[in-house]
Amino acid sequence: MLTPPSTTSTSPDALASMGARICERVDALAAISAEKGAITRVFMSPEQKRASELVLGWMTEAGMDARVDAIGNVVGRYEGAAPGAPAILVASHLDTVRNAGRWDGILGVVTGIECVAALARDGVRLPHAIEVVGFSDEEGARFGATMLGSKALAGAFDPALLKLRDGNGVTMADAIRAYGLDPERIGEARREPAEIAAYLELHIEQGPVLETCKLPIGCVSAICGATRLAVTLTGAAGHAGTVPMNQRADALVGAAAAVLAVEQAATATRGLVATVGRLMVEPGGANVIPGHVAFTVDVRAPQDNQRFSTLKRIEESIVAIASTRGLGVSIERIHDEPAALCDRALQDRIDAAIEAQRYEPLRLASGAGHDAMVMSRIAPIGMIFVRCRAGLSHHPDEHAEPRDVDAGARALLHVLKSFEASPL
Amino acid sequence: MLTPPSTTSTSPDALASMGARICERVDALAAISAEKGAITRVFMSPEQKRASELVLGWMTEAGMDARVDAIGNVVGRYEGAAPGAPAILVASHLDTVRNAGRWDGILGVVTGIECVAALARDGVRLPHAIEVVGFSDEEGARFGATMLGSKALAGAFDPALLKLRDGNGVTMADAIRAYGLDPERIGEARREPAEIAAYLELHIEQGPVLETCKLPIGCVSAICGATRLAVTLTGAAGHAGTVPMNQRADALVGAAAAVLAVEQAATATRGLVATVGRLMVEPGGANVIPGHVAFTVDVRAPQDNQRFSTLKRIEESIVAIASTRGLGVSIERIHDEPAALCDRALQDRIDAAIEAQRYEPLRLASGAGHDAMVMSRIAPIGMIFVRCRAGLSHHPDEHAEPRDVDAGARALLHVLKSFEASPL
Repeated sequence: MLTPPSTTSTSPDALASMGARICERVDALAAISAEKGAITRVFMSPEQKRASELVLGWMTEAGMDARVDAIGNVVGRYEGAAPGAPAILVASHLDTVRNAGRWDGILGVVTGIECVAALARDGVRLPHAIEVVGFSDEEGARFGATMLGSKALAGAFDPALLKLRDGNGVTMADAIRAYGLDPERIGEARREPAEIAAYLELHIEQGPVLETCKLPIGCVSAICGATRLAVTLTGAAGHAGTVPMNQRADALVGAAAAVLAVEQAATATRGLVATVGRLMVEPGGANVIPGHVAFTVDVRAPQDNQRFSTLKRIEESIVAIASTRGLGVSIERIHDEPAALCDRALQDRIDAAIEAQRYEPLRLASGAGHDAMVMSRIAPIGMIFVRCRAGLSHHPDEHAEPRDVDAGARALLHVLKSFEASPL
Repeated sequence: MLTPPSTTSTSPDALASMGARICERVDALAAISAEKGAITRVFMSPEQKRASELVLGWMTEAGMDARVDAIGNVVGRYEGAAPGAPAILVASHLDTVRNAGRWDGILGVVTGIECVAALARDGVRLPHAIEVVGFSDEEGARFGATMLGSKALAGAFDPALLKLRDGNGVTMADAIRAYGLDPERIGEARREPAEIAAYLELHIEQGPVLETCKLPIGCVSAICGATRLAVTLTGAAGHAGTVPMNQRADALVGAAAAVLAVEQAATATRGLVATVGRLMVEPGGANVIPGHVAFTVDVRAPQDNQRFSTLKRIEESIVAIASTRGLGVSIERIHDEPAALCDRALQDRIDAAIEAQRYEPLRLASGAGHDAMVMSRIAPIGMIFVRCRAGLSHHPDEHAEPRDVDAGARALLHVLKSFEASPL
């Protein structure tokens, strides 16, 4: 599958260097960190400001009008053939988790700038404007609340969030003020749906599917909806030596059956995943029968009806296990996020762009959340995934190969160019 | 089953009050504690000294020569028809866990004294001496090492234990010195097998079997052997959203299958119990696939060959699960204690004594450890279990009904009297 990409009408020299230049810029942003020897760049931090200044410079250099909006997003606009036309947003985020990798989010912003630079070099203007956006917060590493940048842009920012405090007790409102922005004016970052023709995001996959399929890039079909359950099973603690097997109400044996039921329910539905990631046993002595177990169930699926029917099955299984084993049970839904489907027409354009690079087009769902999820409220969304090594992300060893980065950039450029002949 | 016990040749008035007097004395010992509102009486403590003085007094009052031995055990001797005859030891322990119940151990010592008192009142001398022993440590609450009293008596005390330190950094040797004994002379507590004709212990069951069978007392067939395994399963941590079900190596799903395999292997063998009491998941985030799980397996059975074959089956199951699921596995045996079988002839005497009280004789294994286990090295052992409420022990709510206590005392007295006609 890894045949050399085809050339396009854009000057070959410029194209040959797209991947290399993107990697250089990703490295340059990685050097801006609150921690030496690690990458940490959180919302409204001095590091965000330095990164924003770097990105603003690259945008201007690429031929864009660049600015920082009311929530700290960096926004560069490359006008279309007719000024003021609705924009195609090409965006991702510039913030990181603590001790992050260098690719998550950043790659999409830098690649967007690189694509606009390529168009500008060739003097291409589309029927739409292009806006490259670097969101100021997606990870929520500072205040817990996530996707602040895209929420403000989509008009979905809840002002109640301004009262949240970071680890040092600083409120979000004060942090925004200290950054030089006005928390009262966050509403000004909001964009009207009529201003945005489409939303495109390029991102590392953060999972192993492309690697397994030996493909450098893929087209995202949907961002999975997610539900999290908090489950407790209560039996009777007892002496591990003195209570016969048939007189036990062992909460852990019940939980074990539940963990296997979760796996079974998940594997029955293609594309759905379910995980018990946290499980705690009480009292927890090696010679004590467990009386109480608490665990989480995380269920994600590209289609909400799949998720709901699997959740029903999981909940029924757990209740049945508890009943059979004489255990008390409680199941609480502590988080619920609907799926965001990618636009069919945008998926077709992305598939065509991947095929034009002579790669097999593969559609895959995103199990991780992305800004595109928020942006789907106000625009059709499309996403390109770039293979990352071993599916590893949120980790210093996060890695994308330069030639995969190059393939992603060429595909994104191809999609943008497709609007020249066939606008939205 | 709870028909009134038959009377014996011992004076009816004295017998009617056995249970009541035993309960009074158990209460008196419960009042001696290091913690107000709780019962805590550990090895070589001031509380042990006060309890010992009380017990020495009761022993003397019952007609015994009473002394404290080199490890702090309280030993009262009631000579047989011929002075210096090998003794039947009637023993249990006087120490407690922290925040204990009042019956565990103590009941056996107090009941032993009460039985000797009854014999002395009637002027009965057996062909054997009777020695009532209150062991100074069985629980190991202070130094971690358990059954120090019976180990010293059986010649199985390892002097290396003297270097162990308690929670305040005090060595066992210093604690023994502070108590007024000499750690160099612990060997003097040792008894020769020729001095001991049999070992009898009466104890609360600490499990629910007698309660389930609606019986106040039962005959112990064996003290279970026990093995503890430390197991780890290692898979690959990953994002709960991005790794498809068929590409996971989820250590917790493997552990869940192992927990169920442990239960299945245990239920296949009557009388054997197996427990996963401790299980820890890493990294432990609700949105992270577990990469590592560590858990214990506690297996107990009255017959060692049952235990070994079940252990083999459990270990094979775990290895097979790990292999199927692509997990790394390690299994370590961190503790191994052989079973101690109760003497058949003593069991027959105990059964006869129970039947003489007009209760159905029931033989049951002890899943908990007892001093009898250690004493089986130097003497034939027999044990009587007394029903305790809900099988609860090592807990302030530990409870035995006075009429069950009375039944136990009468049975023990019956066993002792049986030696009059048919000595060992």
